[in-house]
Order: sequence, then C-alpha cells, then structure tokens
Amino acid sequence: MTARTPLYLESFTVGDTFTSASQVITAKQIKAFAREFDPQPFHLDEHAARDTLFAGLAASGWHTAALTMRLLVDSLPLGNGLIGAGSDLRWPTPTRPGDELHVRSEVLEVKPSQSKPDRGIVVVQCDTLNQRGECVQRAISQLLVFRRA
Amino acid sequence: MTARTPLYLESFTVGDTFTSASQVITAKQIKAFAREFDPQPFHLDEHAARDTLFAGLAASGWHTAALTMRLLVDSLPLGNGLIGAGSDLRWPTPTRPGDELHVRSEVLEVKPSQSKPDRGIVVVQCDTLNQRGECVQRAISQLLVFRRA
Repeated sequence: MTARTPLYLESFTVGDTFTSASQVITAKQIKAFAREFDPQPFHLDEHAARDTLFAGLAASGWHTAALTMRLLVDSLPLGNGLIGAGSDLRWPTPTRPGDELHVRSEVLEVKPSQSKPDRGIVVVQCDTLNQRGECVQRAISQLLVFRRA
Repeated sequence: MTARTPLYLESFTVGDTFTSASQVITAKQIKAFAREFDPQPFHLDEHAARDTLFAGLAASGWHTAALTMRLLVDSLPLGNGLIGAGSDLRWPTPTRPGDELHVRSEVLEVKPSQSKPDRGIVVVQCDTLNQRGECVQRAISQLLVFRRA
C-alpha cells in the first residue's frame, strides 16, 4: 500500500503493509550524529572503529532509529500525525556508511480504545532494510491513531 | 554509584544505580532535530503545536532517546563501549523546550552468555527525568558487556 491520503484508525487492517522511500546515509552524517548524541570511537572514526566489535564505522542505533522515523513520516501519513506511545527496538545488523535504507511496515494489531472511543492503538512492525535486504533495525511500535472526525 | 573507571561484566550487580549529569534541551534544538528526522507540526512550531495532542511544542521521542544516549555515554562508561542489542522505549510525558533532563539507570539483570564466555547481557532500566522528576522516557535496554580481558 502506498499511502498519500491521511490515514485514520478505520483505515488499518492487520496485515496491511507500507513501504517507504529510500535514503542513503553517509559517513559524514554518521559522524555528525555521533558527535552530538553518541560520541564513541566506532561511530566517530573509521580508523578507531577497525579494532572494535563493529570492525569498521557504524551508525549509532539511535541514528538508524531517527532516520527510520524520517522515512515513516512520509510513508505512514496519519490524520493526526505519527505519534508513538512506545517502541521495542532491535538492531540485528549495523548500519554502514553508504547504506541505502528503506522501511517496510506491517500492521500486527489494531486495538480500539475501550475508554476513549475517538482513538486506538495500531501496532506496527517496522523493518529498516539496507540495499542488500538485511534488516538493520526491527521496531515493534505502538502508534496512537485517531478515528476520522 | 558514580562511574568513572571502565566497567566490565563483573562490575555489575542487580540493583546498582547510575545517575548521569543533566542537560537542558532548547526549542531551537527541538526544531532542528525535527527538521532532519521528525518533521511534524508539534515538533517544529510553537503556534502549530498548540492545537495538537501535545498542546504545545514537544521534542520528538527520538530526540529524547538520542539525548538520553548522550547522557549515558558518560554515566555508564563500559570497557568496550556502550553497545545496545535492543531497547524497549516508552514516552510517558512529552519533553518540552527548556526541560533539564538527566538519566537514572538501574541494573535489572546480569546474564553471562552461555556460548561466549567473554561477554554477557546487562539489562538496565534507564529513566530520563525532567527537572520536576517526571519521567519523559523509560527505556529497558539490553547492553552487550564484556568481561575484563
């Protein structure tokens, strides 16, 4: 499903999938993000990264998470905005300089609120994939979604 | 516990706590992060944010997560670096412009690896608190931690 018109709670069915556009992440971006938020050798410098667990420069997992959000904002256009109540993240494979990432989202659950009839929670699995189809992040996210007014 | 010397798997006991320094988040930073990673009205503009669920400018949850990582890098100095295998996040309260955040971490589990004797997983609950003691993020994170060489 390619979504352009705003989505509401009644738009979602378990099993629906959404595919984002793709975006390349550069070494310069990886280092800039790391300097501000995750200043560790394996995110800051190719040479220093060589002898670490990552065996080379890798993006902070929080950079992968933030970039995933950027791709989701356009591929899951919710009527009231894309608001997460929470997210369970795993990073099975590092994100590397030059990787071209896209996000494939699948609806796992649609839960109308018992107490607030105007809204509900949609549980989505958002897999962030690189150009080889490897999953660099799996997020199971709880989205707060409103019904059409 | 205030940690300055490098920590290894054998350094951790269930119930240990670590408190980070604090950092103020500004409206300018909130908007800059949002423009790059989460361009939605409630993260970009005070006026547009007024009529949303947030009723005012709020930081992206991913900004709160990234800032939390920045505070953890200094307050949990692991011998081989602070490497997360995954993290389960909740955002109970929005982060607002001018909030002064710090992180309180508590060790929930210490799990030596069965297959790789040089490492293990330490499960920590990292609560990011504002200046009123309200929790803006609770992260249950799985840290990959090595034994002392």
